[in-house]
Amino acid sequence: MRRPDRDGLARRDAADPLAPVRERFLLPDGIIYLDGNSLGALPASVPGRMRRIVEDEWGRDLIRSWNVHGWVDLPRTVGDRIARLVGAAPGSVVAADSTSVNLFKAVAAARALRPDRPVVLTDTGNFPTDRYVLEGLADVRAVAPEEVEAAIDETVGVVALTEVDYRTGRRHDMVSITRVAHAAGALAVWDLAHSAGALPVELEACDVDFAVGCGYKYLNGGPGAPAFLYVAPRLLPVARNPIQGWFGHADPFAFSSDFEPARGIDRGRVGTPHVLSLAALDEALRVWDGVDIGDVRRTSVELTGLFIDLVGDACPSLETMTPRDPARRGSQVSLRHPDGYAIVQALAERGVIGDFRAPDVLRFGFAPLYVRRVDVHDAVEILREVMVSEAWRDPRHAVRNRVT
Amino acid sequence: MRRPDRDGLARRDAADPLAPVRERFLLPDGIIYLDGNSLGALPASVPGRMRRIVEDEWGRDLIRSWNVHGWVDLPRTVGDRIARLVGAAPGSVVAADSTSVNLFKAVAAARALRPDRPVVLTDTGNFPTDRYVLEGLADVRAVAPEEVEAAIDETVGVVALTEVDYRTGRRHDMVSITRVAHAAGALAVWDLAHSAGALPVELEACDVDFAVGCGYKYLNGGPGAPAFLYVAPRLLPVARNPIQGWFGHADPFAFSSDFEPARGIDRGRVGTPHVLSLAALDEALRVWDGVDIGDVRRTSVELTGLFIDLVGDACPSLETMTPRDPARRGSQVSLRHPDGYAIVQALAERGVIGDFRAPDVLRFGFAPLYVRRVDVHDAVEILREVMVSEAWRDPRHAVRNRVT
Repeated sequence: MRRPDRDGLARRDAADPLAPVRERFLLPDGIIYLDGNSLGALPASVPGRMRRIVEDEWGRDLIRSWNVHGWVDLPRTVGDRIARLVGAAPGSVVAADSTSVNLFKAVAAARALRPDRPVVLTDTGNFPTDRYVLEGLADVRAVAPEEVEAAIDETVGVVALTEVDYRTGRRHDMVSITRVAHAAGALAVWDLAHSAGALPVELEACDVDFAVGCGYKYLNGGPGAPAFLYVAPRLLPVARNPIQGWFGHADPFAFSSDFEPARGIDRGRVGTPHVLSLAALDEALRVWDGVDIGDVRRTSVELTGLFIDLVGDACPSLETMTPRDPARRGSQVSLRHPDGYAIVQALAERGVIGDFRAPDVLRFGFAPLYVRRVDVHDAVEILREVMVSEAWRDPRHAVRNRVT
Repeated sequence: MRRPDRDGLARRDAADPLAPVRERFLLPDGIIYLDGNSLGALPASVPGRMRRIVEDEWGRDLIRSWNVHGWVDLPRTVGDRIARLVGAAPGSVVAADSTSVNLFKAVAAARALRPDRPVVLTDTGNFPTDRYVLEGLADVRAVAPEEVEAAIDETVGVVALTEVDYRTGRRHDMVSITRVAHAAGALAVWDLAHSAGALPVELEACDVDFAVGCGYKYLNGGPGAPAFLYVAPRLLPVARNPIQGWFGHADPFAFSSDFEPARGIDRGRVGTPHVLSLAALDEALRVWDGVDIGDVRRTSVELTGLFIDLVGDACPSLETMTPRDPARRGSQVSLRHPDGYAIVQALAERGVIGDFRAPDVLRFGFAPLYVRRVDVHDAVEILREVMVSEAWRDPRHAVRNRVT
């Protein structure tokens, strides 16, 4: 590959339809943030919203805010904002709980709709919490990612997959796998943790049955933001939430002693919504106003492709794990090196934030709303210097933190 | 009862050991807030903490905050703050999820420890979400509150009760019921929604098996604050969380494909903690620094007793539902009137905030950290005026909101 022209990349950044959206974030100086796939950056309007909800709504208006400030509607209003980004109809997504808890609800509901088929099929690359949740609920069969379609047989009641692999960045073919699952009589549950806000998702068009996703990655909802749950409208009348709480009731404030599930997506709710965290997510989702997810994908493919090309050229000792075919990857690129942990630390010390996944994976996420081509260029320059100088051999970088 | 002496009450307020604690809250002018049993008031240090966690920790330090700002430890540090208030050992309480989700975990875990006893016993006054969660998990037998002990037979595996009735304010005898349950071979699960921060709870001394509770009532953690889960230390090695998520794993960041539950209370966790909401709760719990829960109870008994006496004198058409024996009530007083809803609205218009529970219950909560004797006096004066003038007959007050 020919030497990258930084000025040319800067011109492409300036011409990107997403360029003005970057102004909607508060990004720290001196940092190239390539970890938005783990924790999205802070949208500029969130601090003001949090000040209002804490001081005015909670502090001044107190209990009345449930009505006058719409707290009670937040799970639905946030859900509808997310629905637009994942190809779902209004009223089919609710924001609540954590991704893990939502996956538990979705898979338990799907299992109950296929009582005679004991197996839940997943792939060996699925995120650990997905594996754990499934194993707590069913007989799990885990096959290699490329073997999923062939493994769907008449014993499989539910196919539960994460679209984009958290480790490798590999992307499943949602439309094809869902079609094969349905043809075999199984239901499809998709985890969109690394998809929502990163690439176009078409839940309705793919005829997906259930989906869950994360609020704090590419949706920028803040640390531990509430997650979301999608239920196909055709399944809403029959899908049963295994955790029957009052906010999933048809009329929570009737305080009836009998449980009658809400008719719509509210049946996916359980307890009192985490209003402060939901408000941050609600505000964060406003950065998507007017944003075309097609533009997001085009920029994402360019950023990840540029990173793969530049690293291949500049850092021959780093193996690229992520597929080179754009259709088969999400918005992250993973590299592999036996000293990956120390390299990630050396990069962080030089202002390039990625993360590490055991045993040897360096992950870099490219959130197209605020990562630019020049950031990719500069990050690879710094990575090249770290590799050439072997700066990562500094013994300080070998000390593991609990979380990275 | 003789006419109340407001100056004398003010002198008692000034001499109350909790008087300085009231300064730790931001209370709106012109409001007498008697709904802290539904949503606690805003502690004065919370806005600053929220500003720091949003702008400095999330916005500036981004993903590194999981380590450098202790986000990963929040569920445990918050849990330990709560443990002190409910008579539990450090390391036996975790703050996570909603009360409903925690009750699901606790009752499922308790059920699994008594596999041959199919019945979960509760009382007919239990909060609806508790009833719904139980019915989703087991055969439920619901008896009148005073008949619980007699109903514990050899079919009952779990006794699941809320200590203080959300509607009537009636308090169960936790030590006696837990003892009877154990003698019959059952486990006891207590919901402390209206107890934690309102009165002394002695989970260890009562030998309680599991408990759950709410962060946004008397603990003042903000709207939809994370809830908490207690597991008796003797049960931690054997209690199984039915929702197996990565934060309940012995080593979440090893990303192992096999689920191995954490050894301690972390096994009660599921997904990524709701950091923003947890930070608000963590900060709110600092108002308890140096506070003696015995003082809280003494003031609570005096406030509730004063309210019962004054209302009995001033408002003969209002029936008091809450037991007059202080040992048998929590920190709320419930009144009954066929036009209860409209009366609560007329009070709110005059600055006295209580709430209404269908069909005819007026609820008033007395959070001793910030409600004073003079507030009780003034609230009853306003209530008397509303009743005498029949101001509640104003048709505006008949229109129901969704939530009150």
